[in-house]
Amino acid sequence: MSALHRVVIAGGGFGGLYAAKSLAKAPVAVTLIDQRNFHLFQPLLYQVATGGLSPGEIASPLRVVLRRNPNTEVLLGEVVDLDAGGRRVILSDGEAGYDELIVATGASHHYFGNDQWAALAPGLKTVEDATEIRSRVLAAFERAEREPDLEKRRAWLTFVIVGGGPTGVELAGALGEIANDTLRHDFRRINPAEAQILLIEGEDRVLPLFPPDLSAKAEKQLIGLGVRSLTSARVTDIDPDGVAIEAGGHEQRIAARTVLWAAGVRASRLGKVLAERAGAPLDRAGRVVVEPDLSLPGHPEIHVIGDLANFSHQGGQPLPGIAPVAMAQGRYTAHLVIRRLRGQPMAPFHYFDKGNLATVGRNKAVAQFGSLHIAGFLAWFVWVFVHLMYLVEFENRLLVFVEWVYNYLTRNRGARLITGARRGGP
Amino acid sequence: MSALHRVVIAGGGFGGLYAAKSLAKAPVAVTLIDQRNFHLFQPLLYQVATGGLSPGEIASPLRVVLRRNPNTEVLLGEVVDLDAGGRRVILSDGEAGYDELIVATGASHHYFGNDQWAALAPGLKTVEDATEIRSRVLAAFERAEREPDLEKRRAWLTFVIVGGGPTGVELAGALGEIANDTLRHDFRRINPAEAQILLIEGEDRVLPLFPPDLSAKAEKQLIGLGVRSLTSARVTDIDPDGVAIEAGGHEQRIAARTVLWAAGVRASRLGKVLAERAGAPLDRAGRVVVEPDLSLPGHPEIHVIGDLANFSHQGGQPLPGIAPVAMAQGRYTAHLVIRRLRGQPMAPFHYFDKGNLATVGRNKAVAQFGSLHIAGFLAWFVWVFVHLMYLVEFENRLLVFVEWVYNYLTRNRGARLITGARRGGP
Repeated sequence: MSALHRVVIAGGGFGGLYAAKSLAKAPVAVTLIDQRNFHLFQPLLYQVATGGLSPGEIASPLRVVLRRNPNTEVLLGEVVDLDAGGRRVILSDGEAGYDELIVATGASHHYFGNDQWAALAPGLKTVEDATEIRSRVLAAFERAEREPDLEKRRAWLTFVIVGGGPTGVELAGALGEIANDTLRHDFRRINPAEAQILLIEGEDRVLPLFPPDLSAKAEKQLIGLGVRSLTSARVTDIDPDGVAIEAGGHEQRIAARTVLWAAGVRASRLGKVLAERAGAPLDRAGRVVVEPDLSLPGHPEIHVIGDLANFSHQGGQPLPGIAPVAMAQGRYTAHLVIRRLRGQPMAPFHYFDKGNLATVGRNKAVAQFGSLHIAGFLAWFVWVFVHLMYLVEFENRLLVFVEWVYNYLTRNRGARLITGARRGGP
Repeated sequence: MSALHRVVIAGGGFGGLYAAKSLAKAPVAVTLIDQRNFHLFQPLLYQVATGGLSPGEIASPLRVVLRRNPNTEVLLGEVVDLDAGGRRVILSDGEAGYDELIVATGASHHYFGNDQWAALAPGLKTVEDATEIRSRVLAAFERAEREPDLEKRRAWLTFVIVGGGPTGVELAGALGEIANDTLRHDFRRINPAEAQILLIEGEDRVLPLFPPDLSAKAEKQLIGLGVRSLTSARVTDIDPDGVAIEAGGHEQRIAARTVLWAAGVRASRLGKVLAERAGAPLDRAGRVVVEPDLSLPGHPEIHVIGDLANFSHQGGQPLPGIAPVAMAQGRYTAHLVIRRLRGQPMAPFHYFDKGNLATVGRNKAVAQFGSLHIAGFLAWFVWVFVHLMYLVEFENRLLVFVEWVYNYLTRNRGARLITGARRGGP
């Protein structure tokens, strides 16, 4: 194997995984390195956070996904540094030499300089984030059930979601369904439908990356689920009892015991390593500004893809940090590596935008395909179909589909477990 | 409601849940108190620990299970004390008055005075235990894959299970399947089938509560899965690098990085509270020695059922701590409460032993029904059937069945996730 061209891929998300899959038949030795032993189907993570699916249903072991790639080795490890001259990545417990390096380590939350908010308002990036949010939301209803004081009870039943992008809208919509539908018959003292769900967005409308008419429709769908959105608003403080918000020059305080973060995103730490060790230019969010072929300036053997990359050679705006972009970039880079080995040139990367989808809830979604804008059941159906097609890549697809049909028919959210804290027996 | 006869149930396991269900139509006000918001189907917990099922598939929210019991209220809370004279249970954050109290808080691990072993050799009682064991087992194979030193690699590939009862046998068998089958094609440097799986039992055979011929068959089935059992053996020490074992007067040391605990069980803390506050007699394991009608001596209004109870009025031996006993005791106590309200007498509790089942792996199990002893596929089929029938009580039954059929046909263990430690992005 060592005589082969060595391709190291850092990160097993959509970008890294699709790069590895596209290299399956190439005459190269691939090493995929990830801190986790599984690929996570992040677009459905909000379903875990809201008790609709279990983590095992949206995660597949990387070794299973790549089992039929005999040229690929999976390493559970953390890339902490880079020796660009010696073409080695440094792990926390070892190293790996490369001829081509594909960096696809994604992004994590960003609290705009208020890192102390992280514990108060968890974001949604990992399986642990999702089960933490699930536990907090369910425990809030439990606490409300046992709280005799009306004002305190109201604070337990108030949920604030910061950020009105697709993740924030999905979370808010799912919380609305939980309060109005799932938990309807569960409690004896409180009425879960009294829950206040507040979606806070800095721009003047939710889903600001969608056309205004679809934003308006999504907002209407949210209202139907009991979600109130507050736009052109900015969170100025978060503490255990609530949030302070500035909107239209006015400051207001909202008493809420549950705050979820779906706002800022910052590139993973490896961006900084690439800047220091290989001179990579970074943007304000810490993303690596890549060349038209997704490589680093002066380092054609280092490729950066997915949420970590800022690709602005198409229309001036950076491409959004979504799964289809990462997948396309993973495939592109694999082909670039293969063509380079053959001495063939490769055209610059071009992203073919198939459209934009966001779901709000059962039968509720918005979709844009070029100039075609749809909302409601049809958009929701397309959303389900597209996500199932993506899942076809993974082994759990059939069962997740069964689970969805079952949940749809029964309005079930069976995975409503408060877990995490190590407790004794029952 | 407050004019109604108040029945407080502490614990939402099999005993408490079946008591509550059997009281559904009685003219009483039931309050079920549990620290967790879900009922756990513990007989399948080893499947979570070995990546076959997700926690959500074997747990149901208590509020959902009891949704159709309008006379029942669920409280998420911890019972910490008892005022037997005032007929109140004291919670960590409140209290609840009762006319009848049913205590069903079960049992947890017991390390025979070596509590420092708890962190080194996790037991299997809670969802968190199961995901912790799952992570340790999978991480051990990952570490072995990256370990160049042969001896150290061998220690990562050695798994010791302490305790040869049903749980230990299930865990050992599942580990054998993982090593020989599930992970067969997953690694590039190690051969998972080289894993050593060692089952340690203090008695002279595994499954000591079964007839000797079935113990012998189970041991043969285990050998077929690559599990070696060491009987009449006692663990004398556990440290991060392995275990010390005394067998036949000889001490030996086994280098193993993964040790799982399936041996001692101790009654939950409430046993002690009942002893101090209501004079309950305790046995050596901390279980409450109950009267023929499962009540406390001198306190006919306090009932103790399930793993917390020592019921020795049938054949002299205490009934075993298994789900069918707890369920029967829950039903019995509910009927006792109802008949007492009507002024009717109730015969002493009698457990009808339907038989004993233990599974070793796919197509491998042993079963005893009176004098009928079976082993192999038929016993396994009965095991699956009986567990599915139990699951019929819960909402997830259909999906777990689908999952099982799917896993059986594909030999799949899809929920092989290393989770728990809060990490950053990938």
